Amino acid sequence: MLDRMIWDKLNEECGVFGIYDHGEAAPLTYLGLHALQHRGQESAGMCSSDGEKWYKHRGMGLVSEAFGKADMAKFRGHIAIGHTRYTTAGSSKIENAQPLFFRYAHGSMAVAHNGNLVNASVIRRDLEEKGSIFQTTSDTEVIAHLIARSKSKDLPSAVKEALQQIKGAYALLVMNERQLVIALDPNGLRPLSLGRLGDAVCVASETCAFDIIGAEYWREVEPGELIVIDEEGVTSSKFTKKAERSICTFEYIYFARPDSDIDGINVHMARKRLGKQLALEAPVQADVVTGVPDSSISAAIGFAEATSIPYELGLVKNRYVGRTFIQPTQELRERGVHLKLSAVRKVVEGKRVVMIDDSIVRGTTSGRIVGMLREAGAAEVHVRISSPPVMNPCFYGIDTSTREELIAATKSVEEIRQLIGADSLSFLSVEGMLEAIGRSDKTASRGHCLACFNGQYPTEIQFEGALPAEKC
Amino acid sequence: MLDRMIWDKLNEECGVFGIYDHGEAAPLTYLGLHALQHRGQESAGMCSSDGEKWYKHRGMGLVSEAFGKADMAKFRGHIAIGHTRYTTAGSSKIENAQPLFFRYAHGSMAVAHNGNLVNASVIRRDLEEKGSIFQTTSDTEVIAHLIARSKSKDLPSAVKEALQQIKGAYALLVMNERQLVIALDPNGLRPLSLGRLGDAVCVASETCAFDIIGAEYWREVEPGELIVIDEEGVTSSKFTKKAERSICTFEYIYFARPDSDIDGINVHMARKRLGKQLALEAPVQADVVTGVPDSSISAAIGFAEATSIPYELGLVKNRYVGRTFIQPTQELRERGVHLKLSAVRKVVEGKRVVMIDDSIVRGTTSGRIVGMLREAGAAEVHVRISSPPVMNPCFYGIDTSTREELIAATKSVEEIRQLIGADSLSFLSVEGMLEAIGRSDKTASRGHCLACFNGQYPTEIQFEGALPAEKC
Amino acid sequence: MLDRMIWDKLNEECGVFGIYDHGEAAPLTYLGLHALQHRGQESAGMCSSDGEKWYKHRGMGLVSEAFGKADMAKFRGHIAIGHTRYTTAGSSKIENAQPLFFRYAHGSMAVAHNGNLVNASVIRRDLEEKGSIFQTTSDTEVIAHLIARSKSKDLPSAVKEALQQIKGAYALLVMNERQLVIALDPNGLRPLSLGRLGDAVCVASETCAFDIIGAEYWREVEPGELIVIDEEGVTSSKFTKKAERSICTFEYIYFARPDSDIDGINVHMARKRLGKQLALEAPVQADVVTGVPDSSISAAIGFAEATSIPYELGLVKNRYVGRTFIQPTQELRERGVHLKLSAVRKVVEGKRVVMIDDSIVRGTTSGRIVGMLREAGAAEVHVRISSPPVMNPCFYGIDTSTREELIAATKSVEEIRQLIGADSLSFLSVEGMLEAIGRSDKTASRGHCLACFNGQYPTEIQFEGALPAEKC
Amino acid sequence: MLDRMIWDKLNEECGVFGIYDHGEAAPLTYLGLHALQHRGQESAGMCSSDGEKWYKHRGMGLVSEAFGKADMAKFRGHIAIGHTRYTTAGSSKIENAQPLFFRYAHGSMAVAHNGNLVNASVIRRDLEEKGSIFQTTSDTEVIAHLIARSKSKDLPSAVKEALQQIKGAYALLVMNERQLVIALDPNGLRPLSLGRLGDAVCVASETCAFDIIGAEYWREVEPGELIVIDEEGVTSSKFTKKAERSICTFEYIYFARPDSDIDGINVHMARKRLGKQLALEAPVQADVVTGVPDSSISAAIGFAEATSIPYELGLVKNRYVGRTFIQPTQELRERGVHLKLSAVRKVVEGKRVVMIDDSIVRGTTSGRIVGMLREAGAAEVHVRISSPPVMNPCFYGIDTSTREELIAATKSVEEIRQLIGADSLSFLSVEGMLEAIGRSDKTASRGHCLACFNGQYPTEIQFEGALPAEKC
Repeated sequence: MLDRMIWDKLNEECGVFGIYDHGEAAPLTYLGLHALQHRGQESAGMCSSDGEKWYKHRGMGLVSEAFGKADMAKFRGHIAIGHTRYTTAGSSKIENAQPLFFRYAHGSMAVAHNGNLVNASVIRRDLEEKGSIFQTTSDTEVIAHLIARSKSKDLPSAVKEALQQIKGAYALLVMNERQLVIALDPNGLRPLSLGRLGDAVCVASETCAFDIIGAEYWREVEPGELIVIDEEGVTSSKFTKKAERSICTFEYIYFARPDSDIDGINVHMARKRLGKQLALEAPVQADVVTGVPDSSISAAIGFAEATSIPYELGLVKNRYVGRTFIQPTQELRERGVHLKLSAVRKVVEGKRVVMIDDSIVRGTTSGRIVGMLREAGAAEVHVRISSPPVMNPCFYGIDTSTREELIAATKSVEEIRQLIGADSLSFLSVEGMLEAIGRSDKTASRGHCLACFNGQYPTEIQFEGALPAEKC
Repeated sequence: MLDRMIWDKLNEECGVFGIYDHGEAAPLTYLGLHALQHRGQESAGMCSSDGEKWYKHRGMGLVSEAFGKADMAKFRGHIAIGHTRYTTAGSSKIENAQPLFFRYAHGSMAVAHNGNLVNASVIRRDLEEKGSIFQTTSDTEVIAHLIARSKSKDLPSAVKEALQQIKGAYALLVMNERQLVIALDPNGLRPLSLGRLGDAVCVASETCAFDIIGAEYWREVEPGELIVIDEEGVTSSKFTKKAERSICTFEYIYFARPDSDIDGINVHMARKRLGKQLALEAPVQADVVTGVPDSSISAAIGFAEATSIPYELGLVKNRYVGRTFIQPTQELRERGVHLKLSAVRKVVEGKRVVMIDDSIVRGTTSGRIVGMLREAGAAEVHVRISSPPVMNPCFYGIDTSTREELIAATKSVEEIRQLIGADSLSFLSVEGMLEAIGRSDKTASRGHCLACFNGQYPTEIQFEGALPAEKC
Repeated sequence: MLDRMIWDKLNEECGVFGIYDHGEAAPLTYLGLHALQHRGQESAGMCSSDGEKWYKHRGMGLVSEAFGKADMAKFRGHIAIGHTRYTTAGSSKIENAQPLFFRYAHGSMAVAHNGNLVNASVIRRDLEEKGSIFQTTSDTEVIAHLIARSKSKDLPSAVKEALQQIKGAYALLVMNERQLVIALDPNGLRPLSLGRLGDAVCVASETCAFDIIGAEYWREVEPGELIVIDEEGVTSSKFTKKAERSICTFEYIYFARPDSDIDGINVHMARKRLGKQLALEAPVQADVVTGVPDSSISAAIGFAEATSIPYELGLVKNRYVGRTFIQPTQELRERGVHLKLSAVRKVVEGKRVVMIDDSIVRGTTSGRIVGMLREAGAAEVHVRISSPPVMNPCFYGIDTSTREELIAATKSVEEIRQLIGADSLSFLSVEGMLEAIGRSDKTASRGHCLACFNGQYPTEIQFEGALPAEKC
Repeated sequence: MLDRMIWDKLNEECGVFGIYDHGEAAPLTYLGLHALQHRGQESAGMCSSDGEKWYKHRGMGLVSEAFGKADMAKFRGHIAIGHTRYTTAGSSKIENAQPLFFRYAHGSMAVAHNGNLVNASVIRRDLEEKGSIFQTTSDTEVIAHLIARSKSKDLPSAVKEALQQIKGAYALLVMNERQLVIALDPNGLRPLSLGRLGDAVCVASETCAFDIIGAEYWREVEPGELIVIDEEGVTSSKFTKKAERSICTFEYIYFARPDSDIDGINVHMARKRLGKQLALEAPVQADVVTGVPDSSISAAIGFAEATSIPYELGLVKNRYVGRTFIQPTQELRERGVHLKLSAVRKVVEGKRVVMIDDSIVRGTTSGRIVGMLREAGAAEVHVRISSPPVMNPCFYGIDTSTREELIAATKSVEEIRQLIGADSLSFLSVEGMLEAIGRSDKTASRGHCLACFNGQYPTEIQFEGALPAEKC
């Protein structure tokens, strides 16, 4: 399991959803956001328009908390975009909730964005020197300023101009009263898919948002593609010639919902294959296979199928506790109170257990889970990680992390094994991982961003001074 | 999947938790209730005492909603009981939240109860004729009145007297400022387990509540057993000679959490065996096995292991939508908007699918899921139910249901198959089910209540006039 | 200004409202409770019936907080009663909110009650010995038990039987699905008036509740009167022969709203006359008259009119701060931060100020206000109290107060003057007070309860053991 | 009583508060906002800084609703500004809550503003053409953009540059991490006072905010004055030579709290003098004087003192109903249900009543109150208005109002009298009003803005296209 605390610093995923030409644009966007809820629980927001008026609401918390019945009742219109934002400690404020809404010389616009720019601070300083003021620290506001400064009265042209100035990762939705503009960065680092619901076109970070509203999957948004949807229909163009897919591999490993297809590949099935590949690369004699819920269940089932060791529910997540305020006291902790995860004694007692996890970042959590399995009576605990060691920070979502925090950056596999107290430990190879995910691209990296594994960043990195504090 | 709407009428499960002699009795009870949250989302409540004063709070909704930070801060004491109540349409009121608290001639008491009495209305009428007044329609208040009318000053004796008058299903916790009294009905219809956390003793509807607080499982409460925990220690006695376990089989099939042990048997593993048995009894040629989440996943994995047909995530539950107010309009429904469940096209398209479900009550939901799989492209849908047909109402939790609502009471398996639109349909046999669950009791029914399957009710049934409206 | 903290212990006023035979019984009761809000901010509740079904809701806080839009939407029926409860530290619980609702041998009933019984603990012990259980410590539940134990199937007869057993102060509303029963204690200690709205009859603690709904005042409920309103019309009878009005004088002095008529006398005008009488009894040379808001404003205007000293706004209440959580730190307090009341410098600077207050209980608050006026530059502060010294506890609403807490019970007027730091201090005489209020009764005390002033309690007092903790 | 609905369109008052160099800057600002609550119930907000970090919160509703305990707990710092915003139908959004916070080339700033610019739309268009984007429609954001576009790195200089471009009414607070900058428009249209609390300096729209925190009044902010408070101390300068006080007369008549001093004159005493002057100008034979609460009470007392007709509580405001959702149905309305105001029958029945109101805008409300007094039995109703007829719109707070809506703009006093159904009607003269308020300025208008009475606007008016929708 990716240690959430560290990963929260590394990567702040968000979810975006948009729809054009549906009489129930806002309720459908609301449902789409529900499906994308795993990509952000900090805040949610939505804008819609009926061609003239705007309808807007943003709120803190889950979609169901951010939107009350009265909030929803006021929405109208046939065009809408929505956004869910990830929880990161400290920056939990309504100001950061998206979509952001702006008025400028040529009208009004709303912007929703998933990803991180790598030259935002440079552009921001430049804009401020020209007199711009900012209300948030978000990259999204930088993009909006660039759009507003375009001489072009036409929103799509203004967006295109802005995109030519920014670098990094972005799946971007911009709307005004008449147009929905969609763009994906030239490396296609973040997922973004198009769907159809009758005559309406919708767009979402993951295809699970289409399933909930009964829309059909249409196709991926291409890297470097700009799509405009309005009365004229759907118009596609490329805003750059150097576009090449380098999709974030962690979407398959950890982030995305198992029922989503990322770039055409079902995530659950990719994870099962990662588990099977792991069984090939690092087999072990054992009695039961168990996965760290929720993200490692599919890989564990794959491992079990490949080895014929039965898959069992050795670890269980305490679903409701995540939303409580109770923290175990030191005394309770010593007595073994585990709030988020429990080991199931009947399942693991006296057994040789294979524990499948999707990744190791700092190692603390993995060590704690191994300990829980042993306390519950496991005879042996063999840890198998369904991804390679994470050795480099991610700049497409980074906050403050440094290489030192990444345990695999400074320690050998054997050192990590000792640290987490496992009987054995294996990671998946980069090659095995790519083989298992099975994307068909014929480029060197087969279309993946592997930067966190091998340090090869698909874009130039350009930060200035302190790293910005709040991103999405 | 048991159709929840019907089943809500049939059975209103609750969760109870108690602890004695722990300095953090209330926080631990709060965590225990979190673990039992699946047994009741309507309301939650807790009482504690420090030997003199009482601390009480009840609220509507999930545990995390019912208890605010300020509510928790005021709790003190070393003895506590808690309760979570199931959602049933219409009777969602704070008055029905438990534990109920009463003052009577010999002091004060709090009562938490899971189960339904079958002679409550008869006793109630009798008590009212003697001048008693009631503030709720719950069986629990009837029990409290019987306790209060005892001549005995001693709480355990008074409880024992009360129990000798009531019939039906009950897992009962009663506390005063010094004693925790635990009782289970003579048929042991509802589960109730004891645990230990250091010197403290705890009791819970399911063992998953012990895991979350780091307590060890100790033993089951026996049918007809009365346990008193106080300064003297733990005192056990039998309040009836005719005690014989007839535990509700649906706890294994559907209700309990997979990581709980019910009467010593792990629920996940029992469900896997139900799935394996189903594979033996009703094999089928197919490409993928999928389970209706959440309760049928374990059985589906068992079926997959037994048949070597790969287990896949063909159906996904939309976790967060359950807590929203949005209802799809007729138009949306026709376009295929599915709020609670989605079929995963990539997984099922062109495939022969085995769909494992835990039960069929009215059949409506099963039909809808089969339809969703077909819409997503499934070539064939073979439904396998990991329990026998439900043909009789349950009087240990009944509200208003009649035999007509139970599809299996009036239709043959072939008729049901046609109705739900499956390519084939099989139920598990009663014998196969008992074999798979694998309880070791040597009585005829092997310790299970099978009334809903075979009509043999383990207790006499004694209702008077209209059935009572609100139960737990 | 009556020191609220002490007075809260002395007297817990509540407000009651009922209506029969109006299609909007519940909305009108809701408005009536709004008008009676000053008699209770802790909780509010309402029951209504359409002749068959019951509709009920109770909540914490102000009426507007206790009832949400959804709560109100569900109410139906032509008969309703409501209740607002006063805030008292510690006993702020939903269980204590009224109306209380009960089921008993002859049906269901709801009860709302303002006042305190003086033999509740004796009756309660007796009932508990007969097997009754209680869910609250309120006198109201005692009354309900007595009603339920009557052999009479007829609600009015059962109520009459119950009333013959209780002693103390009560303005009581009881309803079932068809009848509204109204009763006032034999001394008429609490106010209770009847009104008419078209064909409907309504009843309220104060007439201001009639004004808000546009009802006309009809008449007072008489001491010892039992009124039944049902399909037969309005039936009045006496449940005791020894009935004689002894209305609580503090209703005029402090509790009631100035626009209410208590027993036919307008409260604002009575207070103005109290102020005028005070000017006659204790005149003073001064520049401005100011009243401690809100309850002393009318008396201050009367004093000003009688003396021709101009009335000015020398003290202002900070209306909104009452509902905040901020408490000034010690440092802030020393710097003179006054949360609830401010003195207005421009008005009092260099002036001889007459400060009119309605009463002095412990004296602490009065001393603080005198200090504020001096800090704001008042040259002299002459305190005039528009009631006599409070020397005895009130048993018609008492909790725990003792004679020691009443400053006038142990100190002379001169000692109190020194303690509060006034240049002069005068109280109104008992005779002057009675003259000013001007009730026409020709009995010795002229129909008032003067117990807190002269120790002559209109009823026998019968407590057993500790005083009950929660009353209304 | 100024008809609130119309006046809401005419004028949107707000309240501002700031403090520098106090360890409890935020709690004190919170209390200051409570005192200014009557100037805005729509939203409240606050920013503070400890010299490095920012602490910010804004919320909807009353101060006590907008700030929870947790919100307050996080505030730190010695410098803070706060804002309360008035309720106007339709524009009730969190985005409009102030202070607004901005980041720009030279750092960060927060801005709180009371008043309306008359050239905002012109500046805004110009800024947008240069590429600026706006997130609100508020004038405040326009001011912030002007500050940000200054070449000056120094906040006070940048503010000064901005002020030289804007026209209209503004009481402005701007802060960064180290400086509190205060400015008042050259006509001093809005009130703004300075206070001292120990070593700390505070600033507020009204002096009642000083009283609540125990601060001493220091002096008024002068028209056209720019005050900088930082480590260097308090630095005052003038940003324009053409400064001359024209304070809004309605602050005295209606808006301000009676215990505030506006430009050194106590509001309650000014209102009493308005009432006395009215008695001189328009005496009448009558039995009682009553004021329309709350704003006309002081004038009514003045009228009563001058005429020796007793002041009585003939009209009472239903305090709590303002915050409820219940609207009387047509049927209830016809039966005379009055939610906000009641006439007190005992006080007015058979009497000749003088009804004092502060102003008449559309006349609808005045007519309704006269009707209520007659229904309650008043023999005659003589309406006396403590201000002159309002004949011109206010452009220092205007939204959409036109001259047609102002009844006095198109009808004679006699026509208005007939319309509202009074026996007689008189307004105060402009001269009498100025005499009564008694400001000492020797300019023609004696320092008042009288535009709404006489059409002489103290500034040029410069609107472009549609009037902006949301102001403060």
